[in-house]
Amino acid sequence: MLQNNDFSSGKAKTFRAKLLIASSEESADIFYASGFHAPDEFYYYETEHEKGIIVSPLEYSRAVSEVRKEIRVLDRSQLLKECGAEVPFPVFLSRRLGVDCWQVPARFPFADAQDLLKAGIRLECSRTVPFFPERMCKTGEEIAAIRKSVQAAEEMMRLLQYILTESKVNSRGFLELAGTVVTSEFLRSELEGSFKKMGYSASRTIIAHGPQGSEPHNIGSGPIRKGEPIVADIFPRSDVTGYWGDMTRTFVKGKAAPVVKRAFHAVLKASETAKSLLRSGAIASEVHQAACEALRNAGFRTGRTKEGLPCGFFHGLGHGVGLEIHEAPRVSPLNPNPLRAGNVVSVEPGLYYPEWGGIRLEDLVVITRDSFRSFNTMGMELEL
Amino acid sequence: MLQNNDFSSGKAKTFRAKLLIASSEESADIFYASGFHAPDEFYYYETEHEKGIIVSPLEYSRAVSEVRKEIRVLDRSQLLKECGAEVPFPVFLSRRLGVDCWQVPARFPFADAQDLLKAGIRLECSRTVPFFPERMCKTGEEIAAIRKSVQAAEEMMRLLQYILTESKVNSRGFLELAGTVVTSEFLRSELEGSFKKMGYSASRTIIAHGPQGSEPHNIGSGPIRKGEPIVADIFPRSDVTGYWGDMTRTFVKGKAAPVVKRAFHAVLKASETAKSLLRSGAIASEVHQAACEALRNAGFRTGRTKEGLPCGFFHGLGHGVGLEIHEAPRVSPLNPNPLRAGNVVSVEPGLYYPEWGGIRLEDLVVITRDSFRSFNTMGMELEL
Repeated sequence: MLQNNDFSSGKAKTFRAKLLIASSEESADIFYASGFHAPDEFYYYETEHEKGIIVSPLEYSRAVSEVRKEIRVLDRSQLLKECGAEVPFPVFLSRRLGVDCWQVPARFPFADAQDLLKAGIRLECSRTVPFFPERMCKTGEEIAAIRKSVQAAEEMMRLLQYILTESKVNSRGFLELAGTVVTSEFLRSELEGSFKKMGYSASRTIIAHGPQGSEPHNIGSGPIRKGEPIVADIFPRSDVTGYWGDMTRTFVKGKAAPVVKRAFHAVLKASETAKSLLRSGAIASEVHQAACEALRNAGFRTGRTKEGLPCGFFHGLGHGVGLEIHEAPRVSPLNPNPLRAGNVVSVEPGLYYPEWGGIRLEDLVVITRDSFRSFNTMGMELEL
Repeated sequence: MLQNNDFSSGKAKTFRAKLLIASSEESADIFYASGFHAPDEFYYYETEHEKGIIVSPLEYSRAVSEVRKEIRVLDRSQLLKECGAEVPFPVFLSRRLGVDCWQVPARFPFADAQDLLKAGIRLECSRTVPFFPERMCKTGEEIAAIRKSVQAAEEMMRLLQYILTESKVNSRGFLELAGTVVTSEFLRSELEGSFKKMGYSASRTIIAHGPQGSEPHNIGSGPIRKGEPIVADIFPRSDVTGYWGDMTRTFVKGKAAPVVKRAFHAVLKASETAKSLLRSGAIASEVHQAACEALRNAGFRTGRTKEGLPCGFFHGLGHGVGLEIHEAPRVSPLNPNPLRAGNVVSVEPGLYYPEWGGIRLEDLVVITRDSFRSFNTMGMELEL
């Protein structure tokens, strides 16, 4: 995914004017570049002379006070009046700024691209993901923001562990807390509600138990039984900074079945094996393969069930985390590039079998010159 | 924005194959068509023979159980193996499905469009917003989902009203509850935390007081004083259905200044005037203009301050609400089209002045043949 990263090549840089059209919810790049959060589409541009955003009058005065200080704020309604109905707005803008070639992101809207091309304005579509590749190597400030989000996640993971520990098992084998059966929905709403009060947004928090856990993004539902693995994948986003945290633990209330225990230890071993390779220069796909090998060595095979469903370990070992929950660099067989100091990635091997469910263990780390630093302090224990 | 809505034209329909590439968080259209929620990009297609989605192996088995039942689920990793490295995946897919022309949305990713065009596959870029125009006329099921989200919003608005009513004014003129100063941050976290426990996500809830309220999207901060207008704009999204609610009230603790009272009554009158025109066939821009006229008749002028900041009423009267918080149809000067039965739109006139702040009152309504039905039951009172 990073192969076309022409910013990192040795070539002398020539300036390229840049244009983005998106809401800050759709595009982490536009938020990264502007520092401005808006629910509706706005424009961001960089020319040799200036950087600017173009927002609706609704956002104008807020934008003036919130954007990064070198960025000019323009009111779209004023410009639209000058533009008139004949010329598409991006074309008007390009002419006004004297730009005849824009560098645009891979996800630039096709309709706007068509308008620009038709007017003779050239577009260089960057295949680089993210559009601003410097996003991949986090600054000290970004690392501090991510650390806070992981701390919030750990706070909630400890609350979850506490609830599970304090729960009693009723006569039908279900967990109960203060006389009420403990469900995925109850736990999710407790955690997400508490996150909100701490200034973090979390949705679709995964509390998947038993066979549900064999689907990595199944969020889980219904009452939880003793003895079944509970995959808890918690990923809050700070309402203030916009940076995500991400972590996963797997718990069993009471005794785990032998196969679940074996899988847990295999996944733990895979995590340790992968982490031992992390450093600036380590090849992402090789780190992934090392984790796979550790799982194979522990006797776990990856493949498909008779129904064609995947089982074993069938996702990438990790992904970048920052202003997006899943961003570059990926730690997967598809990424043959070296990791670099400042990359923040998850390390999350897992094993999934439709018969009994899943095990996943996820820590978030920042790559350093010789090794890595973990954002996590919480251990990994299976049985509660 | 809806002018290019070629679906509503009298022409005979010819079938068009459709392709979308997006995450369900970026694109309400892909969620609408597939019923599948995924945080990462996936493919949705419609050909004359079938509808399908293409997801990562990570999502495969969950997708099989969650998508609408007529939709086929394909595993991207399997297809990628067949595709190989030479051919871009969208091109491989088009050939495999026998499609030589796709209809794509305005926000279709430009990089994928380039790949397809280069391979000789034609793209018809729909300028229709939304891509599936039937999204604009809500079904009974969608209306029920929106009603629930508005009910949740009203629940929280009543909680806010209660907190403000119960607060005492301290000797410095600030609101206090149980000995603690009441701030925008405190109120936001209370409301958003409670929403989460009800199964709704809310972020950037606006509790803007005093001059902050003059910026329509300023979320508000700091301690609240008696006598200043407090704009509360509450917009939760159901974690289950994905449909939004949206409402705004403006409160003053204690006595409002005469200008604030006058503005409040002018906005209330503008809301009533606009609502009196709502019915299937009413021209959206005319409804907007009627609200403007009511504000002018009450003596309020719209324009700019000496610093160039907009003041008065300077945003559209309303917007569609559904799977997006801001969607078509807009009720604004830019929409010369008639409203239609089943449109769900906000009616939210406002007045904004940097000196004292803002007044905004927002209800959500569904257009009917002869009139409208409001989702709101809560009245509009200024002073508490």
